[in-house]
Amino acid sequence: MESKKTMPTNEHERFMRMALKEAQKAYKLEECPIGCVIVKDGKVIARAHNMRITHNSALSHAEILAIKKACKKLDSWRLSDCDLYVTLEPCTMCSGAIIQARIRKVYFAAYEPKGGAVCSCNDIFNIAHGHNHQVLFEDGVLQEESSNMLKEFFREVRESKKSKNKFPALTDEPNDLFLDLDS
Amino acid sequence: MESKKTMPTNEHERFMRMALKEAQKAYKLEECPIGCVIVKDGKVIARAHNMRITHNSALSHAEILAIKKACKKLDSWRLSDCDLYVTLEPCTMCSGAIIQARIRKVYFAAYEPKGGAVCSCNDIFNIAHGHNHQVLFEDGVLQEESSNMLKEFFREVRESKKSKNKFPALTDEPNDLFLDLDS
Repeated sequence: MESKKTMPTNEHERFMRMALKEAQKAYKLEECPIGCVIVKDGKVIARAHNMRITHNSALSHAEILAIKKACKKLDSWRLSDCDLYVTLEPCTMCSGAIIQARIRKVYFAAYEPKGGAVCSCNDIFNIAHGHNHQVLFEDGVLQEESSNMLKEFFREVRESKKSKNKFPALTDEPNDLFLDLDS
Repeated sequence: MESKKTMPTNEHERFMRMALKEAQKAYKLEECPIGCVIVKDGKVIARAHNMRITHNSALSHAEILAIKKACKKLDSWRLSDCDLYVTLEPCTMCSGAIIQARIRKVYFAAYEPKGGAVCSCNDIFNIAHGHNHQVLFEDGVLQEESSNMLKEFFREVRESKKSKNKFPALTDEPNDLFLDLDS
């Protein structure tokens, strides 16, 4: 019997690199650099990056925007055979959205020690009840690349706080940074 | 010294009745009847109802749509002085979104025994880390009215499953009902 075809590891890295490209777009917008792609049958069906400050919306995390696009693309609220690649461990809201959308598997790069809901501060995929659906996850895919980008971003934000020449939305209210991997 | 002015209890019921009116709108769309309003300084700044099937989007819960509207209305991702009234206990995604938006207090009506993330199946407002923000909540405001509406809805869905004359999006896939208070 032929064994079930699985995606080679470097395929996951290839998709994570696409998510990192999305994160770079967020960086250029002076947003915390987080990117996401959603994959179905080996093809990217949605990509998005963090736009919280640009949209002035608490909901505009990369994962939420990507799920919205994927639902629209497939014309379905259910993304059952889809995998999600994101450059930072999802928060509670995004983990909940991933469950609601019935995403099959989540791959994330960097850990979020202050608010990561998948394994760092919580275990949402295992403890969220009421859904006949178990989201799988794999952590640390291209972790270093994502961590380095986030650290570089926060270093720039801190330096800008002194000179006040960039990141006005972030530097005016430093407590609103939703993570600081370097602290 | 004058004591801090607090809202009388019937004010909370008044706002919950508005949320119940929103739930009725969802019912008419053959959506699970859940409604939400967001209040700031004693005034409703956003109202929304569940539109998951209408929008074909996993994200279109009443709370998410209301938070989106409120952020737009205030032109801010932060809804710090806002209270949220919802006719059913929020799920993990919505509880996470409430934290992200820095909502002050949540009032909910009916309990969601299968997936409620506030107190029924989880304790998200207390266990979600990484945010310098504690969401308060009050449960059971007009619980009976909301429970009755939900029970009536699911009774209709079950009857329609036999006759197949209504609720096609729900009755085709009964497992996708995200709650059934009557079961």
